[in-house]
Amino acid sequence: MKPINYLLYTLFLSVGVVMAQRPPAISSPDVHPDHSITFRYFSRNAQKVTLNGEFLKAPVALTKDTSGIWSVTVPPVKPDIYPYSFRVDSVEVADPNNTYIFANERFKRSIVDIPGDQPLIHSLQNVPHGKISYRTYQSTTLGRPRSVLIYTPPGFNPTGKTKYPVLYLIHGGSDTEETWTKVGRANLIADNLIAQSKAKPMLIVMPYGNVRPSPMPDFTKDMVNDIVPFVEANYPVLKDSKNRAVAGFSVGGGQTLNIGLTNPDKFAYVCSYAPYTATEEFQKNFTNWSPNADQMNNQLKLFTISVGTEDFLYEPVKQNIAMFKEKGLKPNAQIVPGGHTWMNCKLYLATTLPQLFK
Amino acid sequence: MKPINYLLYTLFLSVGVVMAQRPPAISSPDVHPDHSITFRYFSRNAQKVTLNGEFLKAPVALTKDTSGIWSVTVPPVKPDIYPYSFRVDSVEVADPNNTYIFANERFKRSIVDIPGDQPLIHSLQNVPHGKISYRTYQSTTLGRPRSVLIYTPPGFNPTGKTKYPVLYLIHGGSDTEETWTKVGRANLIADNLIAQSKAKPMLIVMPYGNVRPSPMPDFTKDMVNDIVPFVEANYPVLKDSKNRAVAGFSVGGGQTLNIGLTNPDKFAYVCSYAPYTATEEFQKNFTNWSPNADQMNNQLKLFTISVGTEDFLYEPVKQNIAMFKEKGLKPNAQIVPGGHTWMNCKLYLATTLPQLFK
Repeated sequence: MKPINYLLYTLFLSVGVVMAQRPPAISSPDVHPDHSITFRYFSRNAQKVTLNGEFLKAPVALTKDTSGIWSVTVPPVKPDIYPYSFRVDSVEVADPNNTYIFANERFKRSIVDIPGDQPLIHSLQNVPHGKISYRTYQSTTLGRPRSVLIYTPPGFNPTGKTKYPVLYLIHGGSDTEETWTKVGRANLIADNLIAQSKAKPMLIVMPYGNVRPSPMPDFTKDMVNDIVPFVEANYPVLKDSKNRAVAGFSVGGGQTLNIGLTNPDKFAYVCSYAPYTATEEFQKNFTNWSPNADQMNNQLKLFTISVGTEDFLYEPVKQNIAMFKEKGLKPNAQIVPGGHTWMNCKLYLATTLPQLFK
Repeated sequence: MKPINYLLYTLFLSVGVVMAQRPPAISSPDVHPDHSITFRYFSRNAQKVTLNGEFLKAPVALTKDTSGIWSVTVPPVKPDIYPYSFRVDSVEVADPNNTYIFANERFKRSIVDIPGDQPLIHSLQNVPHGKISYRTYQSTTLGRPRSVLIYTPPGFNPTGKTKYPVLYLIHGGSDTEETWTKVGRANLIADNLIAQSKAKPMLIVMPYGNVRPSPMPDFTKDMVNDIVPFVEANYPVLKDSKNRAVAGFSVGGGQTLNIGLTNPDKFAYVCSYAPYTATEEFQKNFTNWSPNADQMNNQLKLFTISVGTEDFLYEPVKQNIAMFKEKGLKPNAQIVPGGHTWMNCKLYLATTLPQLFK
């Protein structure tokens, strides 16, 4: 046998052995033109496979064919980006055939993207794109290196004369510094709104907001004493409060209130999305709080609290809004349909960005 | 009740309802000072939970306590970064309590990092760090936008006078453009070698090498006609073959040979790690191939093929090395212990970087 044929024979044999051990390459999720979706999962041994998804009111069962491939097709879904997972017998799993994973520290779920017939505010469109940089900064507060993602807008020149305003954007409780880009599409929402001249070119700084152990009293210090100075030392940015915004979701929404409302001289834009506020730090900050409301109302160019009517935090958030109003502040309440979801987060962010730095 | 107390009461109640549905926050993996590791998984219903890990010769069973927490402690492991997963009854799952996931399109596994008593070449050390930028380029070859990650070294100034050499580094078959950084720690290996003056400051471009359907004949064209021009149009880089390297692992190792050896005028450094070459494109390129070996040996400043002795591709890779030698080329064979693993990839890359552009 010619050497190359022997080579190929041995190769195919080796690969055949390995391939026999691997599940088949299946397509999942399969988004159809009418926005219905087929999900597939391979298992010869499972007794039951169900699909959980934030586009479903209740889990749906998959059915198995003779080769061990389970599948289900769900009816047309409203275009958006949704988390989902399979439950295989008793075990929740992300979709093994889908790279697009929900970056999170407590669960493993996948993401399905249903494009619209028209481009959505969060879709990858043919416009100039910003960059997402994965950076490390040394946190003196926490005594270790920490991760931060920084979005820089199209046209950004790190050594140029133009200085940019900055949005500090915080994720939710078990999320990570990647969740706002990978699930929230913050970079694409910004690219699109900037291209439409609806939002000003800005940096978006997405820190890692989780500190062990909970609760996280030092994150406010980390933000003010470490993250903001890191950005201001390394990027051409404007350094006054009118050019700094802070926003966040869930636990990050609570952190937004902690950070922003105790530093109104530093952040003139405070946007809190479905804030979780059952923390020592929030209690300490705002029970028996007597702010100089007139002064704060002058300092805050925008103070928004957003929540969905089906959010499990709907009642507490409404009560927080009432509490801040009692103290003389003027929170703008953004009440929308929907739950405590990243679909709502994209809506909150797309509402916020055009309101900043104007 | 004071409004704030009512608020907190409602909040704790709502959160309590949600928390009751959530698994406990457990610590997994728990790396101990002696490099033993405790893994934990929560399930009240599972019958059997085992741990698979590339630091183990065979799976080990976890045992359950009365609260539903399964755990096992493995004996001390050699410091490195290892993929692992749980098998819960019949289902392979990533560790839900570990954010650090193996970026991959076919399976979900987690990553455990065992630090050394001394810093390892891939560890986060107190040296200047480069940046990883997540970019999008328009591929004319594939007719759509594609992702690419670009590492820029410490001190890099995109508008400065210094021009940099470029390593194009390709992942394996079911990996993604993130695998070389997240699992292969390419950025940290580069940071450390540059800090030690062992490697020249360079860009590392990590494309997304998977094209559907397999095999991927157009990836070579995408690299040469779209990725390289994108980098050269957008970054201050040197544009001659002596300043371009191509390297890759497994399927990416095969692509490296396809791209590099058919374009020796473009890439003077070709480093192929455990290449998978059972593809139409490789056959077409190298069966009945009669290269001008003298000319190629002049053009190629470095041509390396690496493999581990326990790699399932060990025999085919040795045969490829023999085949290229028969054709008159001079592949440098790097044969090391170990298998077809990302632990070996880190070793291959750490060997390559000091050899480039000198």
